Amino acid sequence: MEDALTLTTLAESAAEMARSIDTIWVLVTAALVFFMQAGFALVEAGFTRSKNTVNILYKNLMDFSVGSIVFWILGFGLMFGSDIAGFIGSPNFFFKNGWEGGIPAEAFLIFQTVFAATAATIVSGAMAERTEFKSYLIFSLVISAVIYPVSGHWIWGGGWLSQLATPFHDFAGSTVVHMVGGVIALTGTLALGPRIGKYSGKKVNAIPGHNMVLGALGVFILWLGWFGFNPGSQLAASGAANSIAISHIFVTTNLAAAAGALAGVIVSWLKWGKPSLSLALNGALAGLVGITAGCAVVTATGALIIGLISGVVLVYSVTFFDNVLHIDDPVGAVSVHGVCGALGTIMVGLFSESTGLFYGHGTAQLLSQLIGVVAVAAWAGLTGFILFKILKATVGLRVPKRIEEEGLDIYEHGESAYN
Amino acid sequence: MEDALTLTTLAESAAEMARSIDTIWVLVTAALVFFMQAGFALVEAGFTRSKNTVNILYKNLMDFSVGSIVFWILGFGLMFGSDIAGFIGSPNFFFKNGWEGGIPAEAFLIFQTVFAATAATIVSGAMAERTEFKSYLIFSLVISAVIYPVSGHWIWGGGWLSQLATPFHDFAGSTVVHMVGGVIALTGTLALGPRIGKYSGKKVNAIPGHNMVLGALGVFILWLGWFGFNPGSQLAASGAANSIAISHIFVTTNLAAAAGALAGVIVSWLKWGKPSLSLALNGALAGLVGITAGCAVVTATGALIIGLISGVVLVYSVTFFDNVLHIDDPVGAVSVHGVCGALGTIMVGLFSESTGLFYGHGTAQLLSQLIGVVAVAAWAGLTGFILFKILKATVGLRVPKRIEEEGLDIYEHGESAYN
Amino acid sequence: MEDALTLTTLAESAAEMARSIDTIWVLVTAALVFFMQAGFALVEAGFTRSKNTVNILYKNLMDFSVGSIVFWILGFGLMFGSDIAGFIGSPNFFFKNGWEGGIPAEAFLIFQTVFAATAATIVSGAMAERTEFKSYLIFSLVISAVIYPVSGHWIWGGGWLSQLATPFHDFAGSTVVHMVGGVIALTGTLALGPRIGKYSGKKVNAIPGHNMVLGALGVFILWLGWFGFNPGSQLAASGAANSIAISHIFVTTNLAAAAGALAGVIVSWLKWGKPSLSLALNGALAGLVGITAGCAVVTATGALIIGLISGVVLVYSVTFFDNVLHIDDPVGAVSVHGVCGALGTIMVGLFSESTGLFYGHGTAQLLSQLIGVVAVAAWAGLTGFILFKILKATVGLRVPKRIEEEGLDIYEHGESAYN
Repeated sequence: MEDALTLTTLAESAAEMARSIDTIWVLVTAALVFFMQAGFALVEAGFTRSKNTVNILYKNLMDFSVGSIVFWILGFGLMFGSDIAGFIGSPNFFFKNGWEGGIPAEAFLIFQTVFAATAATIVSGAMAERTEFKSYLIFSLVISAVIYPVSGHWIWGGGWLSQLATPFHDFAGSTVVHMVGGVIALTGTLALGPRIGKYSGKKVNAIPGHNMVLGALGVFILWLGWFGFNPGSQLAASGAANSIAISHIFVTTNLAAAAGALAGVIVSWLKWGKPSLSLALNGALAGLVGITAGCAVVTATGALIIGLISGVVLVYSVTFFDNVLHIDDPVGAVSVHGVCGALGTIMVGLFSESTGLFYGHGTAQLLSQLIGVVAVAAWAGLTGFILFKILKATVGLRVPKRIEEEGLDIYEHGESAYN
Repeated sequence: MEDALTLTTLAESAAEMARSIDTIWVLVTAALVFFMQAGFALVEAGFTRSKNTVNILYKNLMDFSVGSIVFWILGFGLMFGSDIAGFIGSPNFFFKNGWEGGIPAEAFLIFQTVFAATAATIVSGAMAERTEFKSYLIFSLVISAVIYPVSGHWIWGGGWLSQLATPFHDFAGSTVVHMVGGVIALTGTLALGPRIGKYSGKKVNAIPGHNMVLGALGVFILWLGWFGFNPGSQLAASGAANSIAISHIFVTTNLAAAAGALAGVIVSWLKWGKPSLSLALNGALAGLVGITAGCAVVTATGALIIGLISGVVLVYSVTFFDNVLHIDDPVGAVSVHGVCGALGTIMVGLFSESTGLFYGHGTAQLLSQLIGVVAVAAWAGLTGFILFKILKATVGLRVPKRIEEEGLDIYEHGESAYN
Repeated sequence: MEDALTLTTLAESAAEMARSIDTIWVLVTAALVFFMQAGFALVEAGFTRSKNTVNILYKNLMDFSVGSIVFWILGFGLMFGSDIAGFIGSPNFFFKNGWEGGIPAEAFLIFQTVFAATAATIVSGAMAERTEFKSYLIFSLVISAVIYPVSGHWIWGGGWLSQLATPFHDFAGSTVVHMVGGVIALTGTLALGPRIGKYSGKKVNAIPGHNMVLGALGVFILWLGWFGFNPGSQLAASGAANSIAISHIFVTTNLAAAAGALAGVIVSWLKWGKPSLSLALNGALAGLVGITAGCAVVTATGALIIGLISGVVLVYSVTFFDNVLHIDDPVGAVSVHGVCGALGTIMVGLFSESTGLFYGHGTAQLLSQLIGVVAVAAWAGLTGFILFKILKATVGLRVPKRIEEEGLDIYEHGESAYN
């Protein structure tokens, strides 16, 4: 204000204030998304056995620590660097400063970092209770540094999916983050095989988690974090349009989560005669994953429907993978993040107010969504498959039988969670 | 800024920035208030027995999920729709968008939704360890959809209590949220009767909770959430007056909580020779509930006194309900939310700097506060009484004796919290 | 906007908006820092035995409650009141309102209050499992009311360390908060002596904590809180320079934490053949403490290096205090906060882009940092020593042998954490 006052200096100062508002928004929501790491750690610890609790907590801590560093060095450039043939960004080692749209580049970096770490974290749940720690560190690093950024570039970095005539739409990452994590998780659990004692012939044995309080607290923390994940993805809050957008996204996110939880209650009640808490919790997560792609473009009613569908599908998906396919996913990560991530992305083609089939806009958006889901699933599946194949042939992917039976905590870390 | 710059366009853009600041504030504080759901879940789980932990967590999850949906469909309209005879708002099904004061209507909706869910949650604690799950879902729905919005309309929606010559003052909900929850909780625990084994003749048997860590973490989370609950209720942050107000509310909220905790320590120490943690924790909550009505209009010293009084009264109230009245309230919800909610509301008539008796402003405010407290308590008590009466006569309110003795988790949900 | 529009009124309203942006930032980050109290409580509870859990939770609750009140009455004035001879602020009992720089004075007060309470909390960990509760309350009060504010005044309140030719630089409190807490913790644990059974002659007996989930959740909460602690210390967010600064501080804070965790993994793996979770967790905290002083003036690469060094030193420091010096610090608070606080402060003299030795700016900053660290350590050490000496001679510092063996929870509080 010390300069001579003119209309121009005032307008410049107003523009600067708008950027500050946007920066605060992105940083506060980034902090909320960071906290999701604690949510994932608790959900995964709660839904597995106490003999592997140190190990699962450790993996979550490492996902984020390793991911933060390698995404800064390499991943961010691959994802957001100048587009190369629609496929990849030009690496920009050790990230350089400046502005990125209306916010400081480092605000954008930290927001993207907390997202990147989430994808790797999803994998740890599905592969819990039997994976070598050393191997885990390696593939967690590769996911955050390469696999996630490449498909992320296709969608958010200016790559080919964002260049389609009707661009693929994934507002906050049902596909970019969750489906990628879920598909890699699937390849991982296939590469590992089920835990000892999980299936005996055709019989499926439940291996209950050790602490539902951790599971429930984890889900509440994740739900809170999603109020950063989705509304933060607007990357701006200044001006009427942004204020309205972020408020709307809060509402759609919340309704989808509530509807997903309710679906989990109702379906489990009808199916088994008793309402299951673990399916209500996973239903809430399914609703959240499902709404993430479309949260900015669907109505509140649309969000409710997306949440309900995601919650219902979740229950059947978990049952299908476990009882029919005999694929052992201790926390249901493949269903929650993979299946509901794909589903939520596709439903944008149905429920988007401006481009969806149900609003009379034809099938162009739906087609783009299908193309994107298939392409990204293929990418994540293929790279995951190769990655785990290599690890299996080199450092080894699964702990020896005795360690698995007695618990990873003591053998791999020399510590137990409870004394 | 692309328009021709004039003083008017600049002023408009400045006004828009102010609304964006307000929107961020309301959304961030709404997220904090949402997180209180986790706090309540932990406090209630920690202060009850492990055989009912799945059930209590489940109820908290359902309160919020069901509440979010029905408040959006019906409750919000009843509370904030156009006033009908001072008693009720005109329902406005499925909420319509637009602006509400300086913020997007959906920002206001989400803020009010997280508040509405709190009232129902309070009830679950007092009725813990013996209530039918199905019945619980129904009354939780009715509270969020009807009971809470109607008395809320009287105070915050333009109804008769806000139209008194000296309007009833409840800034952030000591009465609107907490006393309503506490009074319904009282009618509920009366309708249920005490848990098996709680009272044998004149003898009162303590039934200790199973995990104080959960209780303590829950209180820290609630304290954090209250930094959203009270300062967020300003519904604005832009401009000097709002900046000063929200800062002041942070200070009064914090001092009252600290004083309440201290009161719990001191009174329990003097009374039983040992400082009790559970009473210090409940003292902090009592201070928070007590300051909620007056947080914006009392001085920091006033807040300290309100917190101390709330904390002292809490200890005696808990003892009175338990030892004298033999009313079984496992987590002390009636005392914390009901008694201290009423007390805090009344103390506005004493400590308000601008209208309070102790500042020489006569008894008009005090009288309005008493009228409001009595009227709202009567409303919540009467509707709660009828509601539980109906439920008892139809679906049933209390689980069978054997289920209560062996724990609700296995029988109602087929899951146990710990394995 | 109701006034006649002139360039001046518009500029004034823009300045007011800037202050509102700053206020929101300070309040939101204050809430995050408050939540660190929960983090400390969980880390300390998790890393100690279950028979003392009520006691350790209680101390954390009391730190904050007592601290909030006495810092408001006395400490704030001593720290930020008009400078008296460079040594102390003039007390300003019961804090007076107004503006403090660009934010309401009460926003500044609450931000400083949550910082002050942290210093006392650090002490509770090192003195866990054997300290008299009454004695604890007294020294916690003295720390928040006097010891912390005086050295804080030297650095942040305009005192002598801020008046050096090259001012001592501690952006967010590696020394002001953490080293002060760590050094008092050292004097406290020395005054107490080790827990019964910790050392038998030359033999060191590990006394493992009772719950690693609490430890891990605590660290995630602390990491989250640090996104308030460091970026919030900018005390402003409006304007390009502040937006860039807070974004940069997010990045440096996060990278240092990640690097510290990684260092804990690697060193423990190399040293004992197994990666230890508790050292990874403490490594993350070491990185966070280490970066706190320099977070605003080092590059991202510098932050990574500071985090790595802090994490490595942490492991050796813990081992040194335990195995060589036989100083019993149950949670490693002396190493994490004392040693890494000092270290991080000194490294500003090496890694500061604008004044550090490694950037060719000579040793002036390094010298100032050394002077400050020595002076503040002397102040905290001396006052801590005297304080504990007096307490030992009067109310008593350590609980009787039988209480220590059977657990403080039952004897001091009549409650146990788990039932």
